[in-house]
Amino acid sequence: MESVKGNLLEKINSPADLKKLSKSELKNVCKELRDYIIDVVSTNPGHFGASLGVVELTVALHYVYNTPYDQLIWDVGHQAYGHKILTGRRDNFDTNRKYKGLSGFPKRSESPYDAFGVGHSSTSISAALGMAIASRIKNENDRKVVAVIGDGAMTGGMAFEALNNAGGENADLLVILNDNNMAIDPSVGGLNKYLLNISKSDTYNRFKHDVWEGLGKLDGIGRKTRAFIQKNQHALKNMLLKENNLFEAFNFRYFGPVDGHDVQYLTEVLEDLREIPGPKLLHLITQKGKGFPFAEKDQIKWHAPGIFDKETGEIHRCNCEAEMAPKFQNVFGETLVELAEQNEKIVGITPAMPTGCSMNQMIKQMPHRAFDVGIAEQHAVTFSAGLAAQGMVPFCNIYSTFMQRAYDQVIHDVAIQKLHVIFCLDRGGLVGEDGPTHHGVFDIAYMRTVPNMIVSAPMDEVDLRNLMYTAQLDENAQPFSIRYPRGCGIKPDWKQAFEKIEIGKGRKISDGNDVAILTIGKSGIFALDAVKSLASENISAAHYDLRFVKPLDEELLTEVFTKFDKVVTVEDGAIQGGFGSAILEFMAAKGYSARIKLLGIPDHFIEHGTTEDLYKECGIDTNGIKKGVLDILGK
Amino acid sequence: MESVKGNLLEKINSPADLKKLSKSELKNVCKELRDYIIDVVSTNPGHFGASLGVVELTVALHYVYNTPYDQLIWDVGHQAYGHKILTGRRDNFDTNRKYKGLSGFPKRSESPYDAFGVGHSSTSISAALGMAIASRIKNENDRKVVAVIGDGAMTGGMAFEALNNAGGENADLLVILNDNNMAIDPSVGGLNKYLLNISKSDTYNRFKHDVWEGLGKLDGIGRKTRAFIQKNQHALKNMLLKENNLFEAFNFRYFGPVDGHDVQYLTEVLEDLREIPGPKLLHLITQKGKGFPFAEKDQIKWHAPGIFDKETGEIHRCNCEAEMAPKFQNVFGETLVELAEQNEKIVGITPAMPTGCSMNQMIKQMPHRAFDVGIAEQHAVTFSAGLAAQGMVPFCNIYSTFMQRAYDQVIHDVAIQKLHVIFCLDRGGLVGEDGPTHHGVFDIAYMRTVPNMIVSAPMDEVDLRNLMYTAQLDENAQPFSIRYPRGCGIKPDWKQAFEKIEIGKGRKISDGNDVAILTIGKSGIFALDAVKSLASENISAAHYDLRFVKPLDEELLTEVFTKFDKVVTVEDGAIQGGFGSAILEFMAAKGYSARIKLLGIPDHFIEHGTTEDLYKECGIDTNGIKKGVLDILGK
Repeated sequence: MESVKGNLLEKINSPADLKKLSKSELKNVCKELRDYIIDVVSTNPGHFGASLGVVELTVALHYVYNTPYDQLIWDVGHQAYGHKILTGRRDNFDTNRKYKGLSGFPKRSESPYDAFGVGHSSTSISAALGMAIASRIKNENDRKVVAVIGDGAMTGGMAFEALNNAGGENADLLVILNDNNMAIDPSVGGLNKYLLNISKSDTYNRFKHDVWEGLGKLDGIGRKTRAFIQKNQHALKNMLLKENNLFEAFNFRYFGPVDGHDVQYLTEVLEDLREIPGPKLLHLITQKGKGFPFAEKDQIKWHAPGIFDKETGEIHRCNCEAEMAPKFQNVFGETLVELAEQNEKIVGITPAMPTGCSMNQMIKQMPHRAFDVGIAEQHAVTFSAGLAAQGMVPFCNIYSTFMQRAYDQVIHDVAIQKLHVIFCLDRGGLVGEDGPTHHGVFDIAYMRTVPNMIVSAPMDEVDLRNLMYTAQLDENAQPFSIRYPRGCGIKPDWKQAFEKIEIGKGRKISDGNDVAILTIGKSGIFALDAVKSLASENISAAHYDLRFVKPLDEELLTEVFTKFDKVVTVEDGAIQGGFGSAILEFMAAKGYSARIKLLGIPDHFIEHGTTEDLYKECGIDTNGIKKGVLDILGK
Repeated sequence: MESVKGNLLEKINSPADLKKLSKSELKNVCKELRDYIIDVVSTNPGHFGASLGVVELTVALHYVYNTPYDQLIWDVGHQAYGHKILTGRRDNFDTNRKYKGLSGFPKRSESPYDAFGVGHSSTSISAALGMAIASRIKNENDRKVVAVIGDGAMTGGMAFEALNNAGGENADLLVILNDNNMAIDPSVGGLNKYLLNISKSDTYNRFKHDVWEGLGKLDGIGRKTRAFIQKNQHALKNMLLKENNLFEAFNFRYFGPVDGHDVQYLTEVLEDLREIPGPKLLHLITQKGKGFPFAEKDQIKWHAPGIFDKETGEIHRCNCEAEMAPKFQNVFGETLVELAEQNEKIVGITPAMPTGCSMNQMIKQMPHRAFDVGIAEQHAVTFSAGLAAQGMVPFCNIYSTFMQRAYDQVIHDVAIQKLHVIFCLDRGGLVGEDGPTHHGVFDIAYMRTVPNMIVSAPMDEVDLRNLMYTAQLDENAQPFSIRYPRGCGIKPDWKQAFEKIEIGKGRKISDGNDVAILTIGKSGIFALDAVKSLASENISAAHYDLRFVKPLDEELLTEVFTKFDKVVTVEDGAIQGGFGSAILEFMAAKGYSARIKLLGIPDHFIEHGTTEDLYKECGIDTNGIKKGVLDILGK
């Protein structure tokens, strides 16, 4: 079923077509664009609320700026669907997030309009500054750079690092603060209160109704206004910056806040700002989910709802949940509450992912002991270290891919001091449709090189529970990392009594004679089936789930290398430096020799698609493991 | 020769002794403490200027606060010498930074007064917040937490992440902004201008002379003042926050700026602030190097001057420089300028280390093409990515240990997009006296797991030059990492004509028959001597310098594993996941077998000392390599 494009949208194949329209037609473009996004995303699931919130901004930006010569950078990129549709990707937008289809995020290799690839938060001002300085060096002074960053992303520290540098360089760039009072969950922190205060204050209303238009009345529009602004910066500042100088402290000129859903007004504001040199920030008030009442009402749920009925607002649940096997994240969330009820030292820390990691359960039940610290992975880890230094036992939950951002803090603030912080790395392994920016494939390699760190990965939900239980015991007072995958597990009966796991102990899942398969984490599930399939071909493969990458189970491995001269290792992580590599180091240290094959993520970035597609591509699904075994047996 | 302690200082064995003194005596304590630091550091080299700048603050803090019950966190820790001397470490302060001696930084395992270990920048507010929240949970409401952070460290993004969280939590903590207008080099960016503006404004002077004392006059001192402050927050705000609400935007109460060298006044300010609940920031103006005229005049030079004559100000040069072999950093600095003169696309980026990495040469000669972006590693990398996206060729120089802080940006913003950013990782390997927070031992492991990344390490200065030359060629337009050690090289004649190095090509240094030694980077130098020493015992060891960890030289390695069945790998990096591990992966992939021994940094944190001591401890100096070879040969 083809989606309805509307009379205007169907003619817009690039921003050049948009520019042919009159300003008065833009409101209708916005309506059609919004309808198209709702229509396509309802059947091709993806991020939703964010793009609806910036429809007007997207149209206004491409109307006013000379993209792709001018550089437009969407922070995080959840909100860039409208941008994709207006820049030549309207007709294949239904391939969004599908294997070999469009990426769910802006991506340089996909379009010249995607000036900078994104996915992780808070990078846009840094990248924009780099581009602005490049233009300055190359004397391309007509080239404009715009970064669009949400108020959630603004809490990420590197955004402030970039503001500081941009202000110091007096660089020519526009930062648009898209303030919708939300990250995926509601925005938090002092900054959020500050921005709310601005938008509720008289200043906002005064500005909204009088100041900008007043300028227009006083001095005419267009070039005249601009001349006024340039000549009377101080006067303008006094009018516009009243009580709002957080950004001015970084040498940015602050404009706003303005209503982000009045597209015609926005084009006028942007036309003026385009001509003002130097670092400047436009504070825009928008609503996440704008124009789709269900999404306006429950913005968390509609951040990325999956398939839904656009008329009734009914959201389809994923299959595994319907079958009652829980998501790993929910096992984490529920188990954390159970443990915290037993151990009063336990606290929970999440950098802006309470819903994503299911810590929202603890935040709801024990608000004084669970903390959403904002999009702030670095701080989350060192904050945890501070808590641990005073005797608390923090469970710090960070997606594997985002933990890359706190690597130094893991080493410097936790591991060196051997503090009892428990890292729960959700979304370990290939995450599917979010693609290369979000795959959690490096953590095994980067965590196991850190001294004092216990590195573990459960094969199933029961193991996750027991690792969490084990990690918080006083006897294991050291850094402890537990990584587990995105999505659902396999055990409907996961909620069993806690059992302590001996640190560094793996287990033999099944015996065999021809070859040993060593797995870590979720890969073990695929190996179960591979072993069965091999047995049907009269190949006897033993299966060992190591459970710990560090310390390794030397006893178990001694059994393996005493008995087998052919071994296959499997992990849903990078081969370079990963689990298999740890096994090789063990062999070298002990003088064992065996023919060994390492299965895992190869040395290139894996694109997006279903996890099934991607596991297959990497050769680490059931068939891939089977093939690896046959290879090493020379069959 | 024993250092002169002074009449007061010699009686201060802990802060309890300090508290016995009258406020009027504190000025003399400061004088004695300053003299003692100058005296000891002149012959036992360490960080210098920073500690001189906070003598008064240190004395006032320990006088007013109940340390170690109250938690005092020194950001970075360069400035904590006075703190160490006042907290029981006066008499062994001459072991500072020596092998088995005191650490140059606060360190939890060294003293209960060192509430949180530091070394890297901008962690203090996060840690302090964790402690404050722990106290809140434990109902230890009388426990106070103070973070002391410099204006340089304040540019690190995680400091803002922490401000945001602390403001949102309304946590009870005091942040002291020690504003001396310096990092190691002068502070940069919009924030620096903002703070300078405050301290030069009328507000400062008005505050300094009137407001605080005025409060005292109006309402009496001590409890009465405090009651006034608590009851009249708004009035106080109006008086103190005039024009200064950067920190207020984060829901911090801002106090200051005040003169950080008036110790008696400082104790009064701190006594009042101690009783004000919630998040608050005291802005202190200090001078780095205060009280030592040479250091006041040239603050960069006297950040960590080495051994000096305290009378004449003469600084002793290190031996290798006297012998004319350059420091690696200077080879980098000079070569960068040479290359930038030839290739106009080259730009230089350093996060606050222009002097430390010698990019100050390029900044001086080409100020429009070389950038000190502040203490902001994350931003430095993504800023570089933005520059590269617009066709520039950035040389982004970050110490190996600090690159840990930008790991996500390396992956997410550079490698995924395959941008032509050249990472120069100075201080790779063991750095010596700075100890575990500063050893650059994880980079080989964490870099080689990143797809699209070329990972190299030169064995000497000529190789460093040629790798830099090679990296900037258009044909190598991809992420390129070059790591090299702290300190001096071995080649006085390093400035030779550039030669292109084939990517992934190592070299055979010397032939042999009994065993092959594979080295990367500086370790090759030790291997040269080990080979000679082994030869004198009739052991014939071949030596291969791989030069690239990724891609590996498969041709050379095929030669090695065809010819040898005993191989030793050597690296000055972590064994786990490192260079040797990469060789093992190659062997597994190709089906080679050999007895192989991996030499490198073992799986624990290495303390501080001379690099000689530490290389010996890790068994990767000449003798260590020799021993490794004898081991594998069974001798």
